[in-house]
Formats: sequence, C-alpha cells, structure tokens
Amino acid sequence: MQKTACICTIGDEILIGQIVDTNSSLIANKLNLLGYRVDSMISISDNYDTIVDTLEDLINKYKIVIVTGGLGPTKDDITKHALATISKSNCLVYNEQQLSLIQKMCSLRGIELSQLNRDQALVPENSDIIVNYRGTAPGHLFKFNLDSSTSYLVSLPGVPYEMEDMIDRALLTISQSDIDNRFIYHKVINTFGIPESTLAHKISSWEDSLPKGISLAYLPNPISGVRLRLSTYSGDRIECVNKVEESTNSLKVLLEDDIYGYEDDTLESVVLSLLSQNNLTLSIAESCTGGNISSRLVSVPNASRVYLGGVIAYSNNIKNKILNVDIEVINRFGAVSRECVEQMALGVMNKYDSSLSLATTGIAGPSGDTLDKPIGLIWISVATKNGVYSHKFISSGDRVRNIQRFSSEALNFLRKTLLKII
Amino acid sequence: MQKTACICTIGDEILIGQIVDTNSSLIANKLNLLGYRVDSMISISDNYDTIVDTLEDLINKYKIVIVTGGLGPTKDDITKHALATISKSNCLVYNEQQLSLIQKMCSLRGIELSQLNRDQALVPENSDIIVNYRGTAPGHLFKFNLDSSTSYLVSLPGVPYEMEDMIDRALLTISQSDIDNRFIYHKVINTFGIPESTLAHKISSWEDSLPKGISLAYLPNPISGVRLRLSTYSGDRIECVNKVEESTNSLKVLLEDDIYGYEDDTLESVVLSLLSQNNLTLSIAESCTGGNISSRLVSVPNASRVYLGGVIAYSNNIKNKILNVDIEVINRFGAVSRECVEQMALGVMNKYDSSLSLATTGIAGPSGDTLDKPIGLIWISVATKNGVYSHKFISSGDRVRNIQRFSSEALNFLRKTLLKII
Repeated sequence: MQKTACICTIGDEILIGQIVDTNSSLIANKLNLLGYRVDSMISISDNYDTIVDTLEDLINKYKIVIVTGGLGPTKDDITKHALATISKSNCLVYNEQQLSLIQKMCSLRGIELSQLNRDQALVPENSDIIVNYRGTAPGHLFKFNLDSSTSYLVSLPGVPYEMEDMIDRALLTISQSDIDNRFIYHKVINTFGIPESTLAHKISSWEDSLPKGISLAYLPNPISGVRLRLSTYSGDRIECVNKVEESTNSLKVLLEDDIYGYEDDTLESVVLSLLSQNNLTLSIAESCTGGNISSRLVSVPNASRVYLGGVIAYSNNIKNKILNVDIEVINRFGAVSRECVEQMALGVMNKYDSSLSLATTGIAGPSGDTLDKPIGLIWISVATKNGVYSHKFISSGDRVRNIQRFSSEALNFLRKTLLKII
Repeated sequence: MQKTACICTIGDEILIGQIVDTNSSLIANKLNLLGYRVDSMISISDNYDTIVDTLEDLINKYKIVIVTGGLGPTKDDITKHALATISKSNCLVYNEQQLSLIQKMCSLRGIELSQLNRDQALVPENSDIIVNYRGTAPGHLFKFNLDSSTSYLVSLPGVPYEMEDMIDRALLTISQSDIDNRFIYHKVINTFGIPESTLAHKISSWEDSLPKGISLAYLPNPISGVRLRLSTYSGDRIECVNKVEESTNSLKVLLEDDIYGYEDDTLESVVLSLLSQNNLTLSIAESCTGGNISSRLVSVPNASRVYLGGVIAYSNNIKNKILNVDIEVINRFGAVSRECVEQMALGVMNKYDSSLSLATTGIAGPSGDTLDKPIGLIWISVATKNGVYSHKFISSGDRVRNIQRFSSEALNFLRKTLLKII
C-alpha cells in the first residue's frame, strides 16, 4: 500500500469531451496541502461494471481514492448503487439530515418535492455521510480495512459548486483519522512577458544550482504567463520551507519585476492591490478587449473600492461621442493607433474622474486586418495626471486567444507603469 | 484488443492541481467525431519509469492512445526519451522541417536560437512527425503491430494552443489507415432556466419512451444551463441520425423556448444571431456584472456587427453622470432596484443610439447586502423603443459564480424578450 492518492471522475460527459473536468485539479490541490501526493487521475464511464471494477482496483492500490460524479437525481447516475456493492452494504437508507435539507431547498425555490428529489437522500447504510448544503445529493465516505492499514474512499457529486463545498469536510475527516501523514511543499512564482525558452536560458545557472530534493517545473499559459513551480517532497516541514524559500529569494534577484506575484496571485489581483495601497482609482476604455479586462478586475472581491467602471467603445462613433476621440485622429491614423488609444485613455479618465485610466484598441480577428495592421495588433495606453504611457504588442492567436492575451498584456503594462510612477 | 481509445496526459502540474486539463476534453470530442469511443482518461506524473510503464500498458489495451504533455524545451520534460524507449528507437535525430520552423520562429520573435530550442527538433528516428507550427516541440506518431491488428500512439505537446493545431493532422493520419472505423452519434440540446430535477420530472415520460439504443444524459452547468445529450453507438449512420433526430423533435414540443440551442450554441451566440437576423443593434449598461456580459458577447466573431458597446457603471456617481440615472431614484429605491435598472437601460440606449439595450444592477457579494436585499439579488432590464421589460432574479453562489450566473440570466432574459417582440 502506497501512501498516495488517486482521483477518479465518473461520467460519459467527460469521456466524450462535452465538459472539461475541473474537479480533479481542485481536489489535487487540497490533497497536496494536506500532504497527500496524487499519483494518478482517471476518468471512466457511467457504466455500473466499469465503476465497480475500477474502484475495487483503486482502493487496493491507493491510501485515498476521491471519486466525483454520478450522484445526481437523474437516471444516468448509478454511482451510488456501485458504491453499495463495493462496500458490501445491505441496503440503502434515507439520511434524515439530507432529506430535511432537500425539503427546505425545494420549498425555498418553490419546486414541488418529487420522488426523484427525495431519493437523493438514500445512502448505503454503512457509509459516513458528507452533507450537501448546495444541492440534493449527499457525499459518502467509506473506510476499508486492508491488510495492515486503512484506505479511504470518498464519493462526491460532480457539480463543481457542490463538490467544492463538501471536499474540505471530507478531507478533514480523513486527515484527522490518518496518523501517517507527511509534508509536501510547493512554491509557485508567477512571471509575465518572457517566453518559456528565453526564461529557461536566463535562469539556467540558477536552476542547475538548486539544492538536491527541489524540483522545478515550467507552467506556460497565455493568460497568466510562465509560472515556475518549486517542489519538495522531503519530510521535515521547516527544512522543506526553508530550502524552497531560499531558492525563491535568489530567483527574485534575477527576474526582478518580471515576477508579478506568487501562488494564486493574478495580474488583476496584483494591479488592484497596487492601486488600493496607493489610494488610486481606475477607469477603463476597451475597444478590442470588449469588457474582458473589466470583467477580470471585477471578479476580484472589493474591486469596486478602486475600479470606478469603464466604457466599451466598439464603434468609432462611440469612441468619438462618449470618449471624445477626434474624428480627425481616427481618419488620419485609424482606430488602432497610438494617437487614438491615448485619446481614449484621456477621455475615460476625464469622464470618470479617476486617478488614472487604461485603454485598448486593436484587431482581435478573424477579420479586420489591413496591409500595415495585422490581426493580433493592439495599442495599450495608461493615462495619469502627469502623462500618458503607451505600448504596442502583437499576439498570434485566434479571436478568443487574442482577446485574453490582449487583456493580460494590458494589465501587465498597467502594473509595470504603476511600479514606475508610484 | 478493443476498438477504443485512451487519452493520457503527462505532467505534475496536472497532478498537483496547478492547471486544469482542457486537452483531454478537446481530444475526446475529436475522437468521437471520427467514431472512436474514449474508454478512459488518465493523468500521470512526469516520471520516466511511470511514463514507460503506463504507456506500454495502454498500447496493449487500446487501439488508439493519445498522449499530451512533457515535450517542452525545459528540463522537466522527459516524455520524448520515454517514447524512444517504448518504440525501441535506436537514436534521436534532428527533424529538418521542425528545425527550420524553430529557426524562423526565433528570428521572428527576435530571440537567439539556443541549444534548448534546437534540441526540440530531436525526434526518435522511427516516429512519424507531426509538425508544430505554433511552437517548437513536434508531435510523434508511432504504429505498433500487435497480434492481429495495429495500435497507434500519438504524442503531442501539452500547450493547448499548439496541441489544438496538431491533433487534427494526427487523427486524420490514423483514421485514413484504420479500416475498421465505426459510427457514433451525439446530439446536445441546450436548455436554460429549469433546474435539473424539475426538467427530469417534466420530460420523464418522453425519456421512458426513448427508442432502444439511445441513451440520455443530463449536463447541468450554472453558465450554460442544463444540456441534454442523446447518444447512440449503433453502427449504421443513417439509422443513428434518424432515431436521435426524431427524439429531439418530440422534445422540442415539450420544452419550447426553454431550449435555446444545440451543440456548441451559447446564450451569447444565440442572442447575437437573433439581433443580426432582425437588423437590431445592442448596447449594454453593466453594474454588478462589470463587463462580463460584454466580454461574452465580444468573444463571438463579428459581434461588432450588432453590438455597439457599453458602459460599466460601478459607482452611483457614474450611473448618474454617464447614464443619467436620477440621484433621487438611487436615494429612494437604491442602486439595486427596478427603477434604477430601467433608467440605466434607457440611459445607455439613448447614449449609444442602439435599437435596444440591456442593463444589470445587483449584489455579487461577498459584501454589500442589506436587510431587504440579499447577496445574489439582481435586477435586469431590456429597453426597446416601445417599452422596457424587467426581471428580478436571485442567485446563490460566491462572487464569481454569481457574476457568471447573472450574465447568463441576463442573456437569457434578453433572448426571451427578443422572441416575444420580434
């Protein structure tokens, strides 16, 4: 028996590619934080025999098996019956706590309590229940006493919003009962603006001199840049943390402000913090990014303390009418030009009376390019009370990718400008 | 040997939950379109022995094994060496076509050609190469002649943008050389606004009367609603399609305009089509959704033909100054009220001179609620030249979830209003 974990997702919707599995990633993160290494993830079909065979195999191989999916109210969900078989449960019984929650939910939403809803509270009699406060199907925790140790199987609904609320309670129960837990440490360093191979070249001596037991991985992503992950799996908590933090410090000296943050920091959260720490307010004028930058900022709680709002100025008419861009400027230089983006930035800053502003204009594609202006071209401008800063960038993707990349480039330009002027 | 496929993703970044695997979903979709059923997906570690053991096992079990990840330029990538071992390749050789592409890319980006970049063109001598036009690491296709049939192993880079461009070419090569291909048919019907259990109840007789060989699955999602998938795996193309289409037609009668589309249709693409077909233009005023609706619309190509732009009016001051909402209305009814959202909708329609407009104001959380206005409350309004339509909705999630749900609810309300008035 290894002291490792496996995550198993159940559902044909995953195997036919209809949905992307986001549960495994979230669960892996949480297992790591508790010191459990995930050795494998597997997705299997909604088929009773497949579920029984796979799960029986997994509980013999892994200390912890986390299963999601196949617990919904509809007829394609059969995981619960497979679980009863594996755990040799004699019968399904109604769980009173979940049943009463289901009744409450239905009445709150004005839905009649159907037999389908009621049967969601049916559970194998020998499982511990993980109550579902956000939906109707409860989770299950089974303990299997094998030769010399205990294995745990947790089964949760596949709906991410429900699963997210239940996984912590399930893992807490396990880690409290498991005495052989060990320590894993990861540190993620987020960079933006340097391509992966250039970055690898720049830090190769540093990488070669990493202490034994620390491994480095590169995570390139068009939206969040290249993130570097340092990992150590040795047992002692203080030693783990110290080794990784020392290596991080020497990397900071090398990369300076190409590092925008750590762990879950995003370009948007870092920009909002910088603004907030300096009591600055922001407004945005978006053409080609069409609300994407704004939407990323607003997803961060309390964004409204520094972000006043913005204008989405898709047409030239709106650029002129709402943002006071000269028609003459658009005619002479085009809407995708330094001259236009600077007037957009000044226009929105004045209109919204913000400390500073960000503006974008570009060509996301798939059409709209001209001889001298390719698809993927963007002009970005940051206006402040003391001057306007502009930046040109070319992205090489399809429409959605270009818009995402434009937004990241704009947020990063705003971040670098803020670091210069404050 | 089964005639099925397995998708294997390699990378500790997946197992520790640092990234979500989106490749498997896209690949599964494409395999299905070609008639290959995906039986399993698995994610494994960047470890040489694990890779060799797992892949040797998979090529004995499956007709097609698609591997992504572990082909990048940096030191944590070792898949290529594992592939050379499995395929009993004697050596790695430089692929001239990929090498010349790498040289071009570096020169275009103004990056010096490093040994790391050059070595990306090193490939096992017995593999067919799938050229990478979007990055430096080429893909590989191996054929294994087992007892009575041929198995295929394809290895592609893990970066989605690169993989997406290469997978079609790889699968085309396989399907052309595989003579035993069969037919699978899926139909996805997209609904919005009915909870899963209510929907299940409503269509239960229809579900019970589905012809043998057709299976139904429910795919609930807060952003896209509940999607229903009908699947059939029988062999005859015409029979498959007819059976599924007939069942779909009888479902349409039951659900009417709760169905907003099919397959990859989204609320935003459907709304844009409706507007475009009727020569209508749209503007948007967003408070609590902060650009999210706009950003969803703009992600659809040619959105600019009907979507003029919008105003993100986070603060009350901006609502008044830019959208002409009466301060009196905000003081008396609050910013989150029918009165306010209707003035926002009228304000943006007048300012942008659009045929109609959409407006939102609500409380996304985690703070901002009052005694009579809970977190999750939103008011949505659609203004037209002939009247204003409003709708109140309560979502029960965290901030990000509420914003997403608000946007979907607003787009669906706009869709239903359009169906009524045009």
